[in-house]
Amino acid sequence: MEWIYQQPVKIVFGNGKVNELKGVIQELGKANGILVCSRSFKKSGLADKVFEQAEGLLTAVFSDVSANPEVTEVDACAALMREQGSGFVVALGGGSVMDLAKAAATIATTEDSITLYHGTGKELPAAHLPLIAVPTTAGTGSEVTGVAVLSDHASGKKAPISSPNFYPEYAVIDPELTYTCPQAVTASSGIDVLCQAIEGYWSVNHQPICDAAAVHAAKLVFDYLPLAYQEPFNASAREKMAEASIVSGLAFAIPKTTSSHAVSYPLTNVYGIPHGEACGLTIDYFTRVNAQGKDGQRVEDFAKAVGFADMDAMADAIIELKREIGLRTDLTDFDLSQTQIDELVQLCHHPNLDNNPVKITNDILYDLFDTLTSQATKKQP
Amino acid sequence: MEWIYQQPVKIVFGNGKVNELKGVIQELGKANGILVCSRSFKKSGLADKVFEQAEGLLTAVFSDVSANPEVTEVDACAALMREQGSGFVVALGGGSVMDLAKAAATIATTEDSITLYHGTGKELPAAHLPLIAVPTTAGTGSEVTGVAVLSDHASGKKAPISSPNFYPEYAVIDPELTYTCPQAVTASSGIDVLCQAIEGYWSVNHQPICDAAAVHAAKLVFDYLPLAYQEPFNASAREKMAEASIVSGLAFAIPKTTSSHAVSYPLTNVYGIPHGEACGLTIDYFTRVNAQGKDGQRVEDFAKAVGFADMDAMADAIIELKREIGLRTDLTDFDLSQTQIDELVQLCHHPNLDNNPVKITNDILYDLFDTLTSQATKKQP
Repeated sequence: MEWIYQQPVKIVFGNGKVNELKGVIQELGKANGILVCSRSFKKSGLADKVFEQAEGLLTAVFSDVSANPEVTEVDACAALMREQGSGFVVALGGGSVMDLAKAAATIATTEDSITLYHGTGKELPAAHLPLIAVPTTAGTGSEVTGVAVLSDHASGKKAPISSPNFYPEYAVIDPELTYTCPQAVTASSGIDVLCQAIEGYWSVNHQPICDAAAVHAAKLVFDYLPLAYQEPFNASAREKMAEASIVSGLAFAIPKTTSSHAVSYPLTNVYGIPHGEACGLTIDYFTRVNAQGKDGQRVEDFAKAVGFADMDAMADAIIELKREIGLRTDLTDFDLSQTQIDELVQLCHHPNLDNNPVKITNDILYDLFDTLTSQATKKQP
Repeated sequence: MEWIYQQPVKIVFGNGKVNELKGVIQELGKANGILVCSRSFKKSGLADKVFEQAEGLLTAVFSDVSANPEVTEVDACAALMREQGSGFVVALGGGSVMDLAKAAATIATTEDSITLYHGTGKELPAAHLPLIAVPTTAGTGSEVTGVAVLSDHASGKKAPISSPNFYPEYAVIDPELTYTCPQAVTASSGIDVLCQAIEGYWSVNHQPICDAAAVHAAKLVFDYLPLAYQEPFNASAREKMAEASIVSGLAFAIPKTTSSHAVSYPLTNVYGIPHGEACGLTIDYFTRVNAQGKDGQRVEDFAKAVGFADMDAMADAIIELKREIGLRTDLTDFDLSQTQIDELVQLCHHPNLDNNPVKITNDILYDLFDTLTSQATKKQP
């Protein structure tokens, strides 16, 4: 077996670490930084606090970031970076903020628009402003990946764009930042952490270091996500979910995700189901499908390493977990027509599907949606 | 809990990878390299083969490396690098070769002797020649750490020296390089892999990413070391041990090792017991000691995660493993006098002892040596 591993991001983890950003910036050795954050953190005062604590090392703020960051926003952020002569970037937020900041931090070193590179296959330049990623949800793996997902409404494209350039220099993980995360976001991002770990392990690009990270992260999600959901200020549960999130990021950063992520994209884009919830919707189904494939033993091994008797027990536990944290376990509420299902099946053929260890045919996808839309299979809690 | 994680080494793993070094060198983008290797690889022809396959990208060879590399050898190697104007370094060998190459690659950018920095606490310069580490044993973690252990006969010092500079740019792991490793070296270096994993997990500096790596690596050692020992050309066993070695390197690179490594140093330096065998000699004893401490639950958790019923079962399995691979399980063959034991107890107080989760008193050390030297406790296989 051949594999490579690279993880250039320095991770700094601990409660209150957001208050020590000045030290991280000093270690980075740069000045005149720009803070990129969501409007909500500008409103909540967190952005101002971070700005003040940097004691002059941050000199600009960009907060026009949508939930699905737009190429126009990347260009606007990069323009501000050029105008300010920014020396580094702090990205404070969820995946959207970090993805936008990664792209802008590279584009800012050119006079280009990101549209020159987004969805065109053109290689990004090697230069970039160094980035400190400070995630505010558990999780998105964005703080330890070289990938940014961007949308282009003008051309109708929503696509990932990747570059070795996009790896942040630092990921600063402060579990306390997640205490105020809305309950639904805790649930959806938490199940995404589980899917990233499971899919990273399953992926045809699987490799041992990511395997080890996947097992570690998945165990934590089963043990702590319900508690983090029920008790947002439970320090132990929040800390363990923050740990699960960063370790899960390592688990999928190289192998990439598979079937559940591929199927999630149309569910999010067409039906507005939050990303993590959409991924979690099918992860138990694909557990059982992948256990039947030629790499089925790996699915069993994973379930056992995480602490279950077998993969069926893990799949059942995933359904139970979704119920506990208020996530959909089916699509019956959408009352989907056959035409809508036909459309969904077509839209599921995202490149991530090719990373799945079992070839996902349309027959399997029709069976999946049949299962998800059938009232008969809807077990009562 | 607070922790940091950084692992800047790019890992390239696979059978035959040593034959693809040219590609790695080209990715590094440097020319005029120097190959550092042991005399045995110069004799066996492996060094010549690597040199030829680099097709002109390697231009010099340094092979005067002792089993315990000397500061004078580091200086000689650095002098050759300066003379040749070397652009990068390939270190092909075990821990000794890699440790010497790391130190020389930094010193070569100065006019200094390594003695200016070795054991003096003086910070090493930030510049260094980029290094490609190609380990030939499974294991030494040296390919993924920023540490080099050097000896100075003139001053009597044998001490580790560390620098962020010492991290190789690449670790190229080719399991096939270990096929010709002598059986005793397979045994000793293999048990060292286990000790690094267990001690990295135990260490007071433990942290989650290294924990996950430790569990993964230790499982592999229990499953594959006896087979790699019995069948040196068993491709699967050698591959799994190479994987265990690199993952174990990640497991202890940040937390560092603890009691078994601390106690191993005098056993190696005074009694000539090979490093890994010396570490393995006490790891079952310290398993039982550490299980009684305030972090004892972590010792139990580790044993369970690795697949044992409890820590006692793991400690027993370690003794059995040592028997299977022909390693000492006690010190009875040395027929140590009380004076020699008194001396050993004093010499065990290495800084690594402070990383142990239970404070190791002289009483514990006397009990350890009492156990190891008592014929009564010597169980028959």
